[in-house]
Amino acid sequence: MAYLGSAFSGFAPQVQPGVRTVGGTITDALTRVLGYPVELGIAGRTDKGVHARGQVVSFDVPEGTDLTALSRSVNKLVGADIVVRELSPAPADFHARFSATARRYRYRVLNRETPDPFLSATTWHVPDPLPLDFRAMQAGCDPLIGSHDFASFCRRPDPEAELTRRVTDARWERDDEDVLSFWIEANAFCHQMVRSVVGLLVEVGRGRRTAADVGFVLRAADRAAAPSPAPPQGLTLWEVRY
Amino acid sequence: MAYLGSAFSGFAPQVQPGVRTVGGTITDALTRVLGYPVELGIAGRTDKGVHARGQVVSFDVPEGTDLTALSRSVNKLVGADIVVRELSPAPADFHARFSATARRYRYRVLNRETPDPFLSATTWHVPDPLPLDFRAMQAGCDPLIGSHDFASFCRRPDPEAELTRRVTDARWERDDEDVLSFWIEANAFCHQMVRSVVGLLVEVGRGRRTAADVGFVLRAADRAAAPSPAPPQGLTLWEVRY
Repeated sequence: MAYLGSAFSGFAPQVQPGVRTVGGTITDALTRVLGYPVELGIAGRTDKGVHARGQVVSFDVPEGTDLTALSRSVNKLVGADIVVRELSPAPADFHARFSATARRYRYRVLNRETPDPFLSATTWHVPDPLPLDFRAMQAGCDPLIGSHDFASFCRRPDPEAELTRRVTDARWERDDEDVLSFWIEANAFCHQMVRSVVGLLVEVGRGRRTAADVGFVLRAADRAAAPSPAPPQGLTLWEVRY
Repeated sequence: MAYLGSAFSGFAPQVQPGVRTVGGTITDALTRVLGYPVELGIAGRTDKGVHARGQVVSFDVPEGTDLTALSRSVNKLVGADIVVRELSPAPADFHARFSATARRYRYRVLNRETPDPFLSATTWHVPDPLPLDFRAMQAGCDPLIGSHDFASFCRRPDPEAELTRRVTDARWERDDEDVLSFWIEANAFCHQMVRSVVGLLVEVGRGRRTAADVGFVLRAADRAAAPSPAPPQGLTLWEVRY
C-alpha cells in the first residue's frame, strides 16, 4: 500500500469512530467488501503524518478469492490519499510483520530559505541561512551501521522492551541542489527511531554536534542524550522485504 | 510565486471574505506588511485548483523598500501552500500581465490503473486499461503550433473577445513509464485553453479522436466542437517570460 499520511491520525488498525487512520480505513474497506471482520498484520506501524510507498499488510481470505477484483473494490472505497498497489497470495503462515526481514525508510529535507509548496507535505523544511554540512551528516551515518541498542533514539513502549536493531544501510543522497534524502535500512525499527536519528544528523549538519557525537549518543543508550525527533512529514516507509 | 492550488478558490486578487484565493492571500499579506492598499498586476490568473511554479505579479512600492525583508515577512503570513520565491525591482512601467511576452504551462497525466496518492493533487488520473497512444497525442500537437483563433478551446468572456493566440511550442514528454507531461508555450492563453486542448489530446490518446481532428476542431472555432476540459489539478503555470 501507498499513502500520503498528511490527513491520517497514524496507522492504528482498529476502526475508531471519528478518527481517520490508515489501518482503520483499510480494515473498514476490506470488511465491507469481504463481508466478515478482517484482522490486519502490519509490516510497520507509521506515526501520524508519516507516509508510505511500500507498506505491507496481511489478512485472511477464502481460497479462490479474486484478488484483482478485491483490490479494485477496496481502492474505490478508501479515498485518493491511500491506495492498494498490489494484492498477492501468500503461504498460510505469512504475516506482514513477523515474516519481514528488512524495512527501508526515506527521510527528506528541503534545505533552503524559501519553502516549496509542492514539497511541504513530504519534506522537513530546514531554512537555516548556512547549508547543512553534507559530508559531516554522511560521516555521522557510519556509527549507525551494525547491531546496536537504539534506546537513545526510541520511545520505549515498556521498561522490558528490547531495543537492539541491526542497521544494514544508512546514508544521505542529494536529490537536488537543496533536497537531501536520508535512506536507512534495518531488520526492524523501534518507535521514532528514524526521526530521532535524523534529528541528530541534522544537528550535525548544522555544526551543533559532530559526526562522532552520533556514536556517543548511541552508546549512552539514554533517550535524553538525543535531540528532538525530526517532524513526521519528511518520513516515508519505502519498502519492506521478506 | 509558487503555489499548490488545491486549497485555493482560484486567483481573484480582491480580498473576499470567507473565500481563500491566491491573489487575495498575497494582496492581504502585502497590504499588512506595507501598510497601504496594494493592487496586483498578474501574469496569468489561474483557475480554482490550478498550480503555479512561476507565477509573476507586480505592484508598487516606495523607492528603497527592502525587498528581501518584504519577501520574508510576506512568506511568514501566507501559509505553506504558497510562497514568494523572489522579489525584484522593475522599471516603473512594468506590468506582470501586459509586459509578458510568453507563458509556459505544464499539464500532467497519470496513465495507469491504480492511483498514486503522491500525485493525486498534481495529475489527472487516467486509469484506462489501454495505455494512451503517445505518438497519436504527439501528432495531435502539430496543428496547434502557430497563430490561431482558439475559440473552440476557450470560454469566451464576452461576444467581442479576441481569441487569437500564437502557440510557439506544444508537445508531450514521458516523465516516467506512466506519467506524461504536456508542455505548451504561447504569447498568451485564453480562459481554459490548456485544459481544453488536453481534454481533446487525451481523447486522441484514447483512440476516440484522431490527431487530424485537432486541426478540424481548431478550424471550427466553436466551443461545441471540443470535448470537456481536463480537470484543473493536472495544470501548472510553469514560467512567464518578459
